[in-house]
Amino acid sequence: MKKKVFVVVTARPSYARVRSALLAMRDHADIDLGLVLGSSGLLDRYGDVASAARRDGLVPAACVHNVIEGESLVCMPKTTGLAIVELSTVFENARPDIVVTIADRYETIATAIAASYMNVPLVHLQGGEVTGSIDEKVRHAVTKLADLHLVANHEARMNVIRMGEPADRVVVTGCPSIDIASEVMSGGARPLDRVLNERGVGASIDLGRPFVVVLQHPVTTQYASSRRDVGETLGAIAEVGIPALWFWPNVDAGSDGTSKGIREFRERHPEAAIRFIKNLAPEDFLGLLLRCKALVGNSSVAIRECSFLGVPAVDIGDRQQGRERGANVVNCPPERGAIVDAIRERMGRGHWPGEPIYGTGHAGKRIAEVIAGWAPSIEKRLRFPSAQEVES
Amino acid sequence: MKKKVFVVVTARPSYARVRSALLAMRDHADIDLGLVLGSSGLLDRYGDVASAARRDGLVPAACVHNVIEGESLVCMPKTTGLAIVELSTVFENARPDIVVTIADRYETIATAIAASYMNVPLVHLQGGEVTGSIDEKVRHAVTKLADLHLVANHEARMNVIRMGEPADRVVVTGCPSIDIASEVMSGGARPLDRVLNERGVGASIDLGRPFVVVLQHPVTTQYASSRRDVGETLGAIAEVGIPALWFWPNVDAGSDGTSKGIREFRERHPEAAIRFIKNLAPEDFLGLLLRCKALVGNSSVAIRECSFLGVPAVDIGDRQQGRERGANVVNCPPERGAIVDAIRERMGRGHWPGEPIYGTGHAGKRIAEVIAGWAPSIEKRLRFPSAQEVES
Amino acid sequence: MKKKVFVVVTARPSYARVRSALLAMRDHADIDLGLVLGSSGLLDRYGDVASAARRDGLVPAACVHNVIEGESLVCMPKTTGLAIVELSTVFENARPDIVVTIADRYETIATAIAASYMNVPLVHLQGGEVTGSIDEKVRHAVTKLADLHLVANHEARMNVIRMGEPADRVVVTGCPSIDIASEVMSGGARPLDRVLNERGVGASIDLGRPFVVVLQHPVTTQYASSRRDVGETLGAIAEVGIPALWFWPNVDAGSDGTSKGIREFRERHPEAAIRFIKNLAPEDFLGLLLRCKALVGNSSVAIRECSFLGVPAVDIGDRQQGRERGANVVNCPPERGAIVDAIRERMGRGHWPGEPIYGTGHAGKRIAEVIAGWAPSIEKRLRFPSAQEVES
Amino acid sequence: MKKKVFVVVTARPSYARVRSALLAMRDHADIDLGLVLGSSGLLDRYGDVASAARRDGLVPAACVHNVIEGESLVCMPKTTGLAIVELSTVFENARPDIVVTIADRYETIATAIAASYMNVPLVHLQGGEVTGSIDEKVRHAVTKLADLHLVANHEARMNVIRMGEPADRVVVTGCPSIDIASEVMSGGARPLDRVLNERGVGASIDLGRPFVVVLQHPVTTQYASSRRDVGETLGAIAEVGIPALWFWPNVDAGSDGTSKGIREFRERHPEAAIRFIKNLAPEDFLGLLLRCKALVGNSSVAIRECSFLGVPAVDIGDRQQGRERGANVVNCPPERGAIVDAIRERMGRGHWPGEPIYGTGHAGKRIAEVIAGWAPSIEKRLRFPSAQEVES
Repeated sequence: MKKKVFVVVTARPSYARVRSALLAMRDHADIDLGLVLGSSGLLDRYGDVASAARRDGLVPAACVHNVIEGESLVCMPKTTGLAIVELSTVFENARPDIVVTIADRYETIATAIAASYMNVPLVHLQGGEVTGSIDEKVRHAVTKLADLHLVANHEARMNVIRMGEPADRVVVTGCPSIDIASEVMSGGARPLDRVLNERGVGASIDLGRPFVVVLQHPVTTQYASSRRDVGETLGAIAEVGIPALWFWPNVDAGSDGTSKGIREFRERHPEAAIRFIKNLAPEDFLGLLLRCKALVGNSSVAIRECSFLGVPAVDIGDRQQGRERGANVVNCPPERGAIVDAIRERMGRGHWPGEPIYGTGHAGKRIAEVIAGWAPSIEKRLRFPSAQEVES
Repeated sequence: MKKKVFVVVTARPSYARVRSALLAMRDHADIDLGLVLGSSGLLDRYGDVASAARRDGLVPAACVHNVIEGESLVCMPKTTGLAIVELSTVFENARPDIVVTIADRYETIATAIAASYMNVPLVHLQGGEVTGSIDEKVRHAVTKLADLHLVANHEARMNVIRMGEPADRVVVTGCPSIDIASEVMSGGARPLDRVLNERGVGASIDLGRPFVVVLQHPVTTQYASSRRDVGETLGAIAEVGIPALWFWPNVDAGSDGTSKGIREFRERHPEAAIRFIKNLAPEDFLGLLLRCKALVGNSSVAIRECSFLGVPAVDIGDRQQGRERGANVVNCPPERGAIVDAIRERMGRGHWPGEPIYGTGHAGKRIAEVIAGWAPSIEKRLRFPSAQEVES
Repeated sequence: MKKKVFVVVTARPSYARVRSALLAMRDHADIDLGLVLGSSGLLDRYGDVASAARRDGLVPAACVHNVIEGESLVCMPKTTGLAIVELSTVFENARPDIVVTIADRYETIATAIAASYMNVPLVHLQGGEVTGSIDEKVRHAVTKLADLHLVANHEARMNVIRMGEPADRVVVTGCPSIDIASEVMSGGARPLDRVLNERGVGASIDLGRPFVVVLQHPVTTQYASSRRDVGETLGAIAEVGIPALWFWPNVDAGSDGTSKGIREFRERHPEAAIRFIKNLAPEDFLGLLLRCKALVGNSSVAIRECSFLGVPAVDIGDRQQGRERGANVVNCPPERGAIVDAIRERMGRGHWPGEPIYGTGHAGKRIAEVIAGWAPSIEKRLRFPSAQEVES
Repeated sequence: MKKKVFVVVTARPSYARVRSALLAMRDHADIDLGLVLGSSGLLDRYGDVASAARRDGLVPAACVHNVIEGESLVCMPKTTGLAIVELSTVFENARPDIVVTIADRYETIATAIAASYMNVPLVHLQGGEVTGSIDEKVRHAVTKLADLHLVANHEARMNVIRMGEPADRVVVTGCPSIDIASEVMSGGARPLDRVLNERGVGASIDLGRPFVVVLQHPVTTQYASSRRDVGETLGAIAEVGIPALWFWPNVDAGSDGTSKGIREFRERHPEAAIRFIKNLAPEDFLGLLLRCKALVGNSSVAIRECSFLGVPAVDIGDRQQGRERGANVVNCPPERGAIVDAIRERMGRGHWPGEPIYGTGHAGKRIAEVIAGWAPSIEKRLRFPSAQEVES
């Protein structure tokens, strides 16, 4: 009998990141895949996941609106609490055999709590990595609730085991985000000039000339500074004078601070060569990265996909601090001058050889296989590895 | 300026367990204590915490009804989700400087999520212990969300540090439950015969003759077996023939299975020498333990308070498996014959010398002092101790 | 194309009352019936609706646990609010063409709000009646949210129209509860002695000798008095000395007061000839009524089913005040002496001729037909009938 | 002893509308006022009520974030359900003697349900009026839940009574929105040119020359057409060629449709003489109306404040259909040509004499007095007036 596997996707970038695994599960003979959409994944202004999924032949088993609107931090736990309430009902009615939660966005712990409290075996993708912000707490808390860990690389695996998880339940599959990067790299991305300049607002960008891509998220544990930080980056881009494609941040407390910073800048600098875009199909976005001079911001894309693609990246602030990274990435503080210097330095060096730190491009299939073959267990007890096991 | 410290108490036993710390914080010159009551702590049938708190001079800052009623496991995550939604609003309106969450009941993660997502520094009491059931997952997940860990003993401290928490944020204070046990031991408990026999239902018990105390909780990861398990214990008590004081279990999915098992037994065995009681003041309960022949069941009281008091204890099943314990405790499987043997063996050996495994009786004051003196920080990153640090 | 009609059932008695309409819709060629279960309908201690429905060949489209546990009035609005949150998601995912809500329990307004706010045409059964308590407010508020009103009789219809509803949207169908009563009356109920005495707790009752049936609900707008009221009735029953079958009240704030009153009485009067029962299949319950000397309490069953069956009824207090009733019913205040007198008076007069005040026994089919033939509209505006229209 | 009166304000326009009543209650010797803010009232993008209240010396007793974000209709009932859950907790902790709910926004029924289910006497302001859309259902449903009705005029009073409410609980106080209008009219508004042109986005407007004001809300029962409707109005304004101050609509399902329509128009017609503004202090807004050539849109401001001020108004569509209005208002269908004609016709006729249809300017004090003097009762039963009573 097929295993009923439910995957909960709560944001547009999460969908892109896990897409190859979803498709592999959809096609696996022993898996009956159920896709649940919720949180910012259903908000049009952050990119409509439902349509993207339908284009991939995935009809959502359930959609759950649970984002509490507001620019206060209080909206984050409330969004999470409401997600637990509703996902529990979804699981109660659908009775999945296994539930999968993704990475470390704050609301992903809702999936973990709903499943684990109902004794549904829980798979966690992309645990064991190290960063800053609330993501760091969320990621490891989800690890402690999960029963099977499918991680990106050896270092992540050792981190999970060292936290006391049973070694036989921690499997390196690679990160499925690299699967798309790998396809894009070998396939050749489609031309995008027209598509891009029909979307979003701001300056028209000529992709035939040098440009950068910007992806800057608010850091929720440094709430007040989101607005200032985005201003520093905008100022730096303007100072360097290179045309930029700027992608809107995700819903998060603080994103209104970020949005506000962006809106203000636009009103004061209508002439800046920046185009602001909500989102792009993942393969188009990665194709764009392959052609840009540098990725600027604080997204994990700099560390993850760009290391594989060899795209120069300027990683601002400490949001990604601690994450294993390639030679393509340089870090700088969230200050205009430092950002200017870092962009110029990266632009001067060109692309790098790709590094398979987060996978080789076959994570999706591997994830589907491991889940299909897993004999689920929900009992576990803290067990630390010996010094010998850690070293091996 | 005083620190505004909010402690969220979600169950009657949690109140008892943390009471000495609450009183010490109430009396501390640098702390402005706010007590929040929620979950089963507000349900009359599990023991009214609000009244107990008022008798201690603690007026709740807020009360939150959030228990979803039902015998299905789905009620546990939903109760937790609703607690997050409501505690977030409480914190938003009251703006505490520090929030304290207690131990490992499933809904305590709600306090942890609400506080940590709102950047309110979070203190966790009684982390680092090892048991079975969903408590094991919850406890360690809360550890990963918390910023300061006040633990019962050295072993718990090392467990928290080995999970990757910064060593300077993990402090041994002892468990405040031992504080009451210590007082009761030195003070001498008041006579209880009349009080007891006016409460609850069932047989009248003569405390002047040998009796046992029973405390058996449902195990939520083994949901279906709660009803059977309670039947085994009831049968064993009846077979041994010793009078018993049986305390009702807490609200939890499965507690209806447990309740049902108890009700059935009562209908079929109205003659059994068992008295069923909802709850007792903590000091009375501990005084009772000092006089009983054995504690029977699967409560952590057997491991924690009874080890300190030297009370013989029969620990049934694997709910407490992994927790450090004294010589007073013997474990047995949840089967009638094995329980009968274990009770008889324990009863034949008398009381043991007390062991200070979970504290020496000064935890409450120590907790207040550490919190009052803490310079809160909400940033942390996974950092594992070296082999050397672990061994020291 | 079939109309997708969703009916939300939130309590065991509501299921019984609407059952014939559900079966008629299930069998109607133009209706695709979806049954949603929630609130106390999912609580085992109030009678498991899911099992009853499955025995009728109705597989629930969704189950929603939304009862907030507690004895405080605050649990009623919170239960209702949570029901709105969850039913909205159910409707969003299932997209019904029409939603049906039943009568006047407090949580039924949740169905009305979820549907009407989402522009789903809303049918209300059993509006236009007049009673006391919060039910009175809820019933008429639901009327103002509903688009089609299927009422029990002419008086109810005129009440709805006089409140400003368009006359062509108010249809007399009769109350489906009378359908079962009609079947039971013509069919002959099955013998119950053994069934009854295997259920519930308390005295064994000989159905071959005179007995009464008691159904007493808490009155939520008179919260504090629920416990006292139940005591008066218990005392009266004991004083009259006639054996009684007492059915447990529904979940409602105050029901714990009622339960507590019952438990206390049982402890003090273990010898009383009262058997306490949770619930019975509707047809068995009505068969029982046909054989009893009187129905005692404050349930609408006295007014509704008993008027049709001609069963003598003692209606205590003002909970049903204002509802059209037959000669079978006598009202008395919630005082022991008055209840004793009323019971004796009713018992002395025997059964009455049945009166078809709430229907003739064909409501279920009529409801299905009207809904199947309705061209839904969700727009309406207050329009009062002329004096002439009211008189006709 | 003072009566503790809680008023729940859920939107910026509601605050403006009820402000004079709040100030009168704040200053009343027998009232202890508690202000609760929730729903869109806390969203910055709709105008921050908390700051406005603090400027008026009103510190909120509680703030509740409960808006579910999304452009689907499902977000409306969910927002309402969550408001019930949270307001219930607020009332449970604060124990007000009386609760006041305002008018007919969809989420105001949350206040009504929370209070009425908890037996807290409920006052409803501005009931008995007649309009279209979901507001019509909500307004009258709240009437059926409320215990005291303070209405704007005689017609509203008769409507409430004819719906079956007791005549002695329906009092004409006038609408407090007229109080500000009255002050502005007599006081003389402050100059606004600079203020206005520093706010919002779009063209700069010269208030010394003819201009119109636009206020257009989405109609939730005609969800799909919001985007089209706003386009018609925008097109009409552009065709007439008169400069316009356009105020953003409130949060409501559909508002994203409206926003989208506006954004599209702006991208395509950057040259249009329209300035888009989020909100203005109420007195400034009314001062603006006094100086404009016409108010255009579907807001009740056209019917209410503008009738008093004598400001020409073009009321588009049927959202306000049924509401008593002055000669200043002309209605037209939501079609570009019709709107163009209506604007031109109104502009050609100049201002009208004011009509006190919704009050004379003393509603705030009257409301405070009636509430202070009310002996609350929560029991009521449907009672229709005689033909004679209706005519008198």
